[in-house]
Amino acid sequence: MERADKGLAFMLQYENVAWYDSGEVRILDRRVYPRKVEFVTCRTYEEVVQALRDMVTQSTGPFTAAAMAMALAAYQCRDRNAAQQLAYLEHAADVIAHARPTTVGRMARITGGCLEAAREAIANGERDVATYIRDFTVRTNNRRYSRVGQMGKHLAALIPDGGAVMTQCFSETILGMMLRECREQGKKVRMFCPETRPFFQGARLTATVCHDMGFDVTVITDNMPAYVMQREGIDLFTCAADAICCDGHVVNKVGTFQISIAANYLGVPVYVSGVPDQGHPTVDCVHIELRNPAETLEAMGVKTAADGVKGYYPAFDITPPQLITGIVTDLGVYSPLELDKYLAVSEIGPYEMVV
Amino acid sequence: MERADKGLAFMLQYENVAWYDSGEVRILDRRVYPRKVEFVTCRTYEEVVQALRDMVTQSTGPFTAAAMAMALAAYQCRDRNAAQQLAYLEHAADVIAHARPTTVGRMARITGGCLEAAREAIANGERDVATYIRDFTVRTNNRRYSRVGQMGKHLAALIPDGGAVMTQCFSETILGMMLRECREQGKKVRMFCPETRPFFQGARLTATVCHDMGFDVTVITDNMPAYVMQREGIDLFTCAADAICCDGHVVNKVGTFQISIAANYLGVPVYVSGVPDQGHPTVDCVHIELRNPAETLEAMGVKTAADGVKGYYPAFDITPPQLITGIVTDLGVYSPLELDKYLAVSEIGPYEMVV
Repeated sequence: MERADKGLAFMLQYENVAWYDSGEVRILDRRVYPRKVEFVTCRTYEEVVQALRDMVTQSTGPFTAAAMAMALAAYQCRDRNAAQQLAYLEHAADVIAHARPTTVGRMARITGGCLEAAREAIANGERDVATYIRDFTVRTNNRRYSRVGQMGKHLAALIPDGGAVMTQCFSETILGMMLRECREQGKKVRMFCPETRPFFQGARLTATVCHDMGFDVTVITDNMPAYVMQREGIDLFTCAADAICCDGHVVNKVGTFQISIAANYLGVPVYVSGVPDQGHPTVDCVHIELRNPAETLEAMGVKTAADGVKGYYPAFDITPPQLITGIVTDLGVYSPLELDKYLAVSEIGPYEMVV
Repeated sequence: MERADKGLAFMLQYENVAWYDSGEVRILDRRVYPRKVEFVTCRTYEEVVQALRDMVTQSTGPFTAAAMAMALAAYQCRDRNAAQQLAYLEHAADVIAHARPTTVGRMARITGGCLEAAREAIANGERDVATYIRDFTVRTNNRRYSRVGQMGKHLAALIPDGGAVMTQCFSETILGMMLRECREQGKKVRMFCPETRPFFQGARLTATVCHDMGFDVTVITDNMPAYVMQREGIDLFTCAADAICCDGHVVNKVGTFQISIAANYLGVPVYVSGVPDQGHPTVDCVHIELRNPAETLEAMGVKTAADGVKGYYPAFDITPPQLITGIVTDLGVYSPLELDKYLAVSEIGPYEMVV
């Protein structure tokens, strides 16, 4: 492994994201990474669901973890008959998909895909359905990474040599692929990462990937993006999405909305990577997860506010299409108002992992 | 002291902000307040300057501390002859005014006023020039509080009963006076305070004043203002200023600019309290202080980013007049583009503490 590729390469090994083996799912604990490389071990799919709720993993990690949870569910019901196994797995697929309210649609695609694989395995008399599901997940993930590689190329093409890019939150695969492409083209890029409170994913994770891949990276606090865009010549703001509605609304980590407003005010283009999610035809389908309010009253485990003061923690916000310059897909850049054109030519199957 | 008035009343006692007595200046350490009530004791005016640089005190605290530093300087040179004392104090006034680059203009008014008082005291043969400067400071502060009380009334008149107000950073006197007025009018107000990274003044100080005065207060992280404005029916965004240029540009804690951009996008009015600073005729006079970059790489003393990642810490930003609905002065609300009208009628003397 090339030293400068550590951040991306580490995160692209499935074993380091979430991995099923012998009745256990092991998940990288991104709440402490990169300061510590620790794994949370789950022995039931219900424990994986709890880990997802506890934000043990982030970015695209939850989707891989959900698929591995389906493998674990198959292990849990291995001694039952075929009909009972399928009923058990149908229930598990539903429970896992609902781990967090904002991503139910995408999660249901993942667990639905694993359920299809399980049906196939059971129909073919496979003895180890769990491993079959894991191997199916590796194949779909490989197709996903190939697709994300294309996104990275389209994104890199938008960055001028010597340019400056602002990000929001963690998106190791897209970000990593974009930077790998910049490096192959010999482009120098300065990265600016808002820290992303309250969990500091920008400071802890996004910035680490940029640094490990050999790029100049600066962490700023979440009240600085407008100032930095104005003063540091930011060429583009880019982020991934937890959901891209087919009507062009983007659901992503809270903060994306206000950075996009500032970017528009200052004439900085906004590019969101991902593909439209047919499970979210319009913004009306979006349910914003409200997490534990206490999390906004502390930082790195230390309380910040006095007793009696309330917190409030919407995990995501919604950026409307009129603030978005383009959606960067595997097939190129689309207007957020013309995502039907992408859907008309995309060959992503109904149960594929999209991004 | 009424229980519900604790936060404001505590901060309005000069002894609790910064106080000269018997060769010492004692400054409330707002870096740990309200979790701890601790004071930093300075025995030379140079130590006060260092305390200002270290952000021991904030909001209007530095201006009171600067005046008390002048009293301390008078104590330090008490054994010299009149001409030497004046030369010493002229030098001290200059050093203290330059403690932090963004506030040199306002600081110079404070230290200049104290220098005038010292000239008067020395000419009159006062034996304790230091105490004379302190008492002069108390009188000017009393006039200032009376002026801020008027601002609080004008601000409170802008808030509907049952309304919601978003703030930025700490401004205990204006905020406290506004809330006191709301309480006297029986207005219920919900307060939303962004936490204000990297020092958390919003979470630690602003929210504490609101809570101590009996108001419903919610702390949010700095990436949430746009979302909260959109979803929680914020009626107005209001803040104080480190400097209001006569051309209507407002210098305030970093983040004010992007909250104002979001407020304009969402149709939320933006009110800035204070008076135009004749030391800053135009925005071109503003020098933004860049503080220690390491401060954006940690939170509450805990490191957030990996080694090798850079930080960046502009302490302030500049909000242009077209984003500001009104400047709330002691004499009423003025358009940021018509501050000359305020200056034409204001009777604030050249060395008065303004706000």
